[in-house]
Amino acid sequence: MAVPLAVVADPRAPHSRRTLALDPGTSILRAAHAAGIDITATCGGRGRCTSCRVKFLAGPVPPPTIMDEVQLGPALVRDGYRLACQCAPTDAATVQVTPPLDEDGFQILGAESGVARHFHGLHPDAGVDKQLVKVALPREEHHQTSDVEQLGAAIGLPPADVAPAVLAGLPGALRDDPDGVTVTTFGGRVLAVERGDTTAMRFGLAVDIGTTTVVTTLLELASGEQLASVSSLNPQSVFGGDLMSRIAFAQFNPANLRRLQARIVALLNQHVAEVCRQSGVLSKWIYKVVVVGNTCMHHLLLGIDPSWVGLAPYAPVMRHPLVLPARDLFLKVAPEARVCLLPIVAGFVGADAVAVALATRLADADALRVAVDIGTNGEVLLGSRARVWACSAPAGPALEGAQIRHGMRGAAGAIDRVTVDGDVHVHTIGETAALGICGSGLIDLVAGLLGAGAIDATGLIQVERRDALPPALGARIVQRGEERQVVVLRPGEAGATQEIVLTQDDVRQVQLAKGAIASGIAMLLHVAGIRAETLDELMLAGGFGNYVSVESAVRIGLIPDLPRERIRYVGNAAALGAQLCLLSEAERGHATEIAGRIEHVSLAAHPDFEQLFVDAMNFPAA
Amino acid sequence: MAVPLAVVADPRAPHSRRTLALDPGTSILRAAHAAGIDITATCGGRGRCTSCRVKFLAGPVPPPTIMDEVQLGPALVRDGYRLACQCAPTDAATVQVTPPLDEDGFQILGAESGVARHFHGLHPDAGVDKQLVKVALPREEHHQTSDVEQLGAAIGLPPADVAPAVLAGLPGALRDDPDGVTVTTFGGRVLAVERGDTTAMRFGLAVDIGTTTVVTTLLELASGEQLASVSSLNPQSVFGGDLMSRIAFAQFNPANLRRLQARIVALLNQHVAEVCRQSGVLSKWIYKVVVVGNTCMHHLLLGIDPSWVGLAPYAPVMRHPLVLPARDLFLKVAPEARVCLLPIVAGFVGADAVAVALATRLADADALRVAVDIGTNGEVLLGSRARVWACSAPAGPALEGAQIRHGMRGAAGAIDRVTVDGDVHVHTIGETAALGICGSGLIDLVAGLLGAGAIDATGLIQVERRDALPPALGARIVQRGEERQVVVLRPGEAGATQEIVLTQDDVRQVQLAKGAIASGIAMLLHVAGIRAETLDELMLAGGFGNYVSVESAVRIGLIPDLPRERIRYVGNAAALGAQLCLLSEAERGHATEIAGRIEHVSLAAHPDFEQLFVDAMNFPAA
Repeated sequence: MAVPLAVVADPRAPHSRRTLALDPGTSILRAAHAAGIDITATCGGRGRCTSCRVKFLAGPVPPPTIMDEVQLGPALVRDGYRLACQCAPTDAATVQVTPPLDEDGFQILGAESGVARHFHGLHPDAGVDKQLVKVALPREEHHQTSDVEQLGAAIGLPPADVAPAVLAGLPGALRDDPDGVTVTTFGGRVLAVERGDTTAMRFGLAVDIGTTTVVTTLLELASGEQLASVSSLNPQSVFGGDLMSRIAFAQFNPANLRRLQARIVALLNQHVAEVCRQSGVLSKWIYKVVVVGNTCMHHLLLGIDPSWVGLAPYAPVMRHPLVLPARDLFLKVAPEARVCLLPIVAGFVGADAVAVALATRLADADALRVAVDIGTNGEVLLGSRARVWACSAPAGPALEGAQIRHGMRGAAGAIDRVTVDGDVHVHTIGETAALGICGSGLIDLVAGLLGAGAIDATGLIQVERRDALPPALGARIVQRGEERQVVVLRPGEAGATQEIVLTQDDVRQVQLAKGAIASGIAMLLHVAGIRAETLDELMLAGGFGNYVSVESAVRIGLIPDLPRERIRYVGNAAALGAQLCLLSEAERGHATEIAGRIEHVSLAAHPDFEQLFVDAMNFPAA
Repeated sequence: MAVPLAVVADPRAPHSRRTLALDPGTSILRAAHAAGIDITATCGGRGRCTSCRVKFLAGPVPPPTIMDEVQLGPALVRDGYRLACQCAPTDAATVQVTPPLDEDGFQILGAESGVARHFHGLHPDAGVDKQLVKVALPREEHHQTSDVEQLGAAIGLPPADVAPAVLAGLPGALRDDPDGVTVTTFGGRVLAVERGDTTAMRFGLAVDIGTTTVVTTLLELASGEQLASVSSLNPQSVFGGDLMSRIAFAQFNPANLRRLQARIVALLNQHVAEVCRQSGVLSKWIYKVVVVGNTCMHHLLLGIDPSWVGLAPYAPVMRHPLVLPARDLFLKVAPEARVCLLPIVAGFVGADAVAVALATRLADADALRVAVDIGTNGEVLLGSRARVWACSAPAGPALEGAQIRHGMRGAAGAIDRVTVDGDVHVHTIGETAALGICGSGLIDLVAGLLGAGAIDATGLIQVERRDALPPALGARIVQRGEERQVVVLRPGEAGATQEIVLTQDDVRQVQLAKGAIASGIAMLLHVAGIRAETLDELMLAGGFGNYVSVESAVRIGLIPDLPRERIRYVGNAAALGAQLCLLSEAERGHATEIAGRIEHVSLAAHPDFEQLFVDAMNFPAA
């Protein structure tokens, strides 16, 4: 008899819940695929990776298989995670497909030995320690002592290592609870003293501040469990979509600099409130925050003048890793919580690139690999254990849907998949009425139009040749006044209430964006003296890289035409790097070591760049 | 021909300017004394001390004598200071008698070898260093560096030693001035980076936060020169005049605690603005602040809950010395300026007592001495190089004029000197119409009435015996309803527009206050096993101790009846101790060492205290 199984495909998309009838002995993976629900199965459903894991939200959790235990580890198994390819429930249940960000995080970790343990809860090393102590109160009038000396004696630290902000509430805390107080330390410094036993409450935030998107993740520090994650548009965007316009806004204008800083701090505090609301964690139990971001975002967060980051030679004001108390940034977590900013490599190769290098193990392996973090400001890393090069690739926000006539972010209603055969076929996020087109859809669309001959290698929309195209497709190629357009959807098609078009200008924007990334890759290969074919692997990182079709990306020349098994999604590796540093001080130390080894390649300053960029603007021949 | 010489007797009293006719060859000291202007001349006008020094405000400064150079040092001589006993101007000029606080500071210093040099600018050691450096800007795009790394290379410090708040303005400062930047460090940490050469601008504040009075002094750190000094009532006083009522207001009430903290911080910022206005120094050039105060004032400044300081065993929350950035206290000096709080001994023996011990060298000399800091919360120290004891003596605010019918502070119009022979004769500050009576006048008055038999040893005003007194005095002894009074001034006498009386209650208040101090001294002598007669010296410290008549103080039993040459005014020793620590890190380190050696004696907890206190309440027999 079939068992009802509810599957939540994407916890961020409220309408993604569907109920399947699961035949006995059928794995969740097979049933989901049969029903058209995407669950990644990198290893082909053989229990050799973690990409297909699901979490049981309701119903009895089936006993773990040996593959569950090997791949997921005891902590995740205990928390109700199972591999969808190995699991055939016999009772009604609800499972959730793990979020893509997280998913790919696990893919990276599964692929690299030694990192996974942090997520499997085997050896956490966040540096935040809590201990319950009973402090003997001062009792003698003649031989006086003080509360903080008594506290210090109880935990074996000198009074000077107690942060002054902790002193304010210390006497009350010491006297209020017969069970004692919980003392939180980080690096031998007392960050908090709380009434009673709160030793189990030990949380941290990993924050990835992108030019366009900000992602904040709340983790339990002992297990590494992700309790909540929120993402938002960077509210600085209203003052400039890309880095250079953001810098220009702040340049030589202290008031604007303060506005940018205030906006990001306010957003982070909204994120704190939201992850705390989602998880039930109190903000005062967040003792460590790791922030990654490009150099400009980093400087703006600290209120540091980024004027010269925007002028040759684009020098950052600082590059060293920084640890400062949360109150200095007005972050509403524990006041003495430590905010750790990862080191920076160069003005346009920031802490986010360092985090990508850390999370992908690019700088630690023998294999020669490329990591491409596709974002408004893209970064490209190339290297191995021996040497690492990095450059920035200013793609602009086109691939995030900005500056595109009907562009939008990858939210419900966005066209995220396009196939072009005799006509244009679209898929929308949430399978709702189409509202616009996001980056992955845009790349699919351009790739498809290229393949069909509706765009030529220079990017020109082939209005003159539309009669040679299949009639349905040809009818979508139009000239309106001066403007060449492809009508992607007419009103009524795919639920669209208005026409959705791709303009000639949109194609040019895609060319500029992909040209920036492609020429960055080409330049690093050129500097390193390596041919693309010899690369062991190309990793696509970033929230966007996560959704793009590899075939389409190769077709438009965004990435080199490698054998497909050598191209891999690695998810939001920058955010993942932040999480690693949050959970492990050893990882945070390693990030600094890696940053010191990364060799910066300045595209603009290189004599061969111009030709590489011009070449990269065109599309590859079919 | 006589030369006109204007003498400003007290810069704090605007009406104290008088013009003398100075005969040729007559010293300023002699002319001033002849005219009734008090200028202290500890050595008898022989050029052997610095107590009579004056500053030339206008007119040509006479060439220094050899005594000027020996006693005052080159810095003060350059700044227009001369010894009044050695100086006979031949041209019209205006001189200012140095303020009493300062005056006595110099007396102390003159008396103690090795300290004076700090004030004579011979070996300053404030710890605040400034250097003008040219920083090579980042020039290379490929091999990137950062502004702060370039700065670090120029001064030989790692980037992590640059305070984050300095980073904000760093790129602008480095690029704006061809002369380079001035880097300020304290303890190897970069506190500020300023455009151009500001190496000469190096200032600090010494702050003495008393329960009733707050004194802030601005010093130039290289020379030790005092540029400005302001004092105010502690604005917390409206929430309680003495320590216990101040603590009660804050006790278990975080909102009130914040109000107290906000009030003192606001006052300190007013003081900063005022000393800067007076001196022309910019507040951003103030890099070090040393604060002393009793334990409660210390805790309130830091926003630390003082609830348990007011409950047995009166334990402070912290005792260790603290250094924190000014921005943490919202002090409007250089944001990264270091605020240094001296260590504390006990709940009622605070950093001010430590500063007194430091400034008087009590804990460093072979002589056995007592220092009495007379204030709302008095402190008594007894000891020598061998051992030091301390206790607190809660005198209450009576000796500062509070809780006295016609009491007032020692400001213009206050009766500050009283003699009683056949009648009562008064002197007022500024020699203006009498408005009320301040602490020194009160002690003189009670002492005089005692001597005349108008008050008996139990403190009772002798209404019944008034006929046995000289008629003029007897007529002043009155009974009004239930209340015994002494009419000090009738309307019209000494310009008084209203009657000024001393009530029986006022006498009781004086008895309580002097009893607290006297029993504190007696208890320390008792604990140490020492008889008062064997003391080498008794030092009167504090703004109040500065003005009180020793004869009167002995007469009422405030201090023991020692030979007069063994009793000495030492001025505001707490403020002076703060100044020493401001000018010298060695002194600041020494303060911590001394604090560790001071043995606290709790009066209330000692079984013999009650009898000592009862004895001390009475007045000594004539």
